[in-house]
Amino acid sequence: MTRQSKLAVQALQWTGDALKVLDQRQLPETIVYDEYSDAAGVAEAIASMRVRGAPAIGIAAAYGVVLSVMRHYSAGSDQWRQQVAADIDRLAHSRPTAVNLFWALDQMKAALIQAQSDPLAAALACAEKIHADDIAANHAMGELGADILAGAKGIMTHCNAGALATGGYGTALGVIRSVYRRQPVNVYAGETRPWLQGARLTVWELAQDGIPATLIADSAAAWLMKSGAIDWIVVGADRIAANGDAANKIGTYSLAVLAKQHGVKLMVAAPTSTIDWSIKDGSSIEIEQRNPNELLAPCYIKEASLVSAWNPVFDVTPAELISAIVTEKGVVLNPSEHGVGSLKHADQ
Amino acid sequence: MTRQSKLAVQALQWTGDALKVLDQRQLPETIVYDEYSDAAGVAEAIASMRVRGAPAIGIAAAYGVVLSVMRHYSAGSDQWRQQVAADIDRLAHSRPTAVNLFWALDQMKAALIQAQSDPLAAALACAEKIHADDIAANHAMGELGADILAGAKGIMTHCNAGALATGGYGTALGVIRSVYRRQPVNVYAGETRPWLQGARLTVWELAQDGIPATLIADSAAAWLMKSGAIDWIVVGADRIAANGDAANKIGTYSLAVLAKQHGVKLMVAAPTSTIDWSIKDGSSIEIEQRNPNELLAPCYIKEASLVSAWNPVFDVTPAELISAIVTEKGVVLNPSEHGVGSLKHADQ
Repeated sequence: MTRQSKLAVQALQWTGDALKVLDQRQLPETIVYDEYSDAAGVAEAIASMRVRGAPAIGIAAAYGVVLSVMRHYSAGSDQWRQQVAADIDRLAHSRPTAVNLFWALDQMKAALIQAQSDPLAAALACAEKIHADDIAANHAMGELGADILAGAKGIMTHCNAGALATGGYGTALGVIRSVYRRQPVNVYAGETRPWLQGARLTVWELAQDGIPATLIADSAAAWLMKSGAIDWIVVGADRIAANGDAANKIGTYSLAVLAKQHGVKLMVAAPTSTIDWSIKDGSSIEIEQRNPNELLAPCYIKEASLVSAWNPVFDVTPAELISAIVTEKGVVLNPSEHGVGSLKHADQ
Repeated sequence: MTRQSKLAVQALQWTGDALKVLDQRQLPETIVYDEYSDAAGVAEAIASMRVRGAPAIGIAAAYGVVLSVMRHYSAGSDQWRQQVAADIDRLAHSRPTAVNLFWALDQMKAALIQAQSDPLAAALACAEKIHADDIAANHAMGELGADILAGAKGIMTHCNAGALATGGYGTALGVIRSVYRRQPVNVYAGETRPWLQGARLTVWELAQDGIPATLIADSAAAWLMKSGAIDWIVVGADRIAANGDAANKIGTYSLAVLAKQHGVKLMVAAPTSTIDWSIKDGSSIEIEQRNPNELLAPCYIKEASLVSAWNPVFDVTPAELISAIVTEKGVVLNPSEHGVGSLKHADQ
């Protein structure tokens, strides 16, 4: 965990007998860590979105299992296993869609089955490895991405694919951190309506790390590109198809089209676990529609209102508009040429 | 004023002895008309941005002069002229940049100079003519624009170029109103960060007129276009150059580029008074930068903050990306071919 301790921003902190969770709903005005000492509390922290971002959710759940073992384990009986299984079930029901959550809980279950004399030590070792591996993957992506961005004068990002969404360091923001350590670069962040992850989270975590950032309205991005201020847009991804099409926060597709028209390049930074090998292209990615009330003034939220809202959470950027996909296992340049298949068996 | 009385939404209402001004700062949650019975009050309503939009500001100022005459005129002495002149001066200083304000005050001054026996009647007639002419121009634009939009299934607009910004009916929203009266059409409005004119004003005034509207985050527009839901984008303009380049609310240029890439057409609806014949193209239009604090969370508004914001108010859309410019004097299709010179002497 040496690397983690260097980070200014941590969504999650393990204290030795509790998990501290940064309440991201209150950022940037209020920095509050809530401390949880049982699995039920961690499940609630996930369900209430104090912690967000698939990798961060998985890590939180893993520590939740550690807390469960800590509370229920007693040598000489197997009864604790039932209690821990119930807690794992509770954690699994905290959020329905985050794949990393189930993956992390499976890792923890396997570790407890294999554990011989000291299940608590085994659980803690597994959770800390999940956490450390995620940070290491982010650092690997950061360095690979920074190699590609050498010489860039301006970089824009969208939403928050940062330390707050991961074990630490971040995917897209990991790349930006690595670039910034090598050379001066102007960093721009789009506000990212309707949740304002850019305005609330991204500029905050960059500032915590001493990296200056300039916030813009999402609709000002094209005018910024036209001014010549940015060379690259760097974003994360929620799902990548085998051909390189990438689903990400609504607005990413817009930036991709605008980038192409202005000679700006687009980089997607995401761990290989984000790649969904079962889908050929992005057309089969279902786009979640979020509650229209996120956009509507309260006076429109009523029966038979003439004002409605269309509120897709994600959009899909075709591989043709992506210049580079950066993962912890390597980089694919111009993914529209051969898809991302080269990453499937890389370095495993 | 017959046409005006049909409108559900009016930024300004003349009562016979006072001007009622809809406080747009409080929309859509609260509908409050403030009533002003002297010129100082009207000047304050303009300065405080209860009323916004260049044409609406000009009309309000004209009624302000009427109120001044009403208060100060007495037959048999010319002393009232000085008092009215002072009020005109006060109104002229209420907002620095709205050209229509000075134009309207000049009209009122001329009317008072020419007035024979009844300066109050002359002033009121002039103010009502300014108001009625603006509404008539909007209706003319609406019909001309609707002719072009025949058969459109989906139309998107940006910011608020509606009844609230004019004497009534609106420019871009006037076109949308006229289309909607002829045929069913799906209307989409972008939120228009940072001031949310789309979310606060446009969907409100459409709903007041019984026109259903769907609000979207600005960054969702590209994904909406990709879905095939819209055929046209219709916007207003703050200044149009002789070659057809058009300055409008930030985000318009973004929509124009995205529209071109998705086979969606762009219409600019604005009165000929918006055309600045003195500038050859949009490159000489100065883009006002608004206060970065409009975008920043309060915690970033401090000395030596690492978080800043870039907040241009307008952008310029090149004529090549505009399919039609619609004015009260006629239409220019594909303005990039010959500019808007054909409108200069049309029907004057």
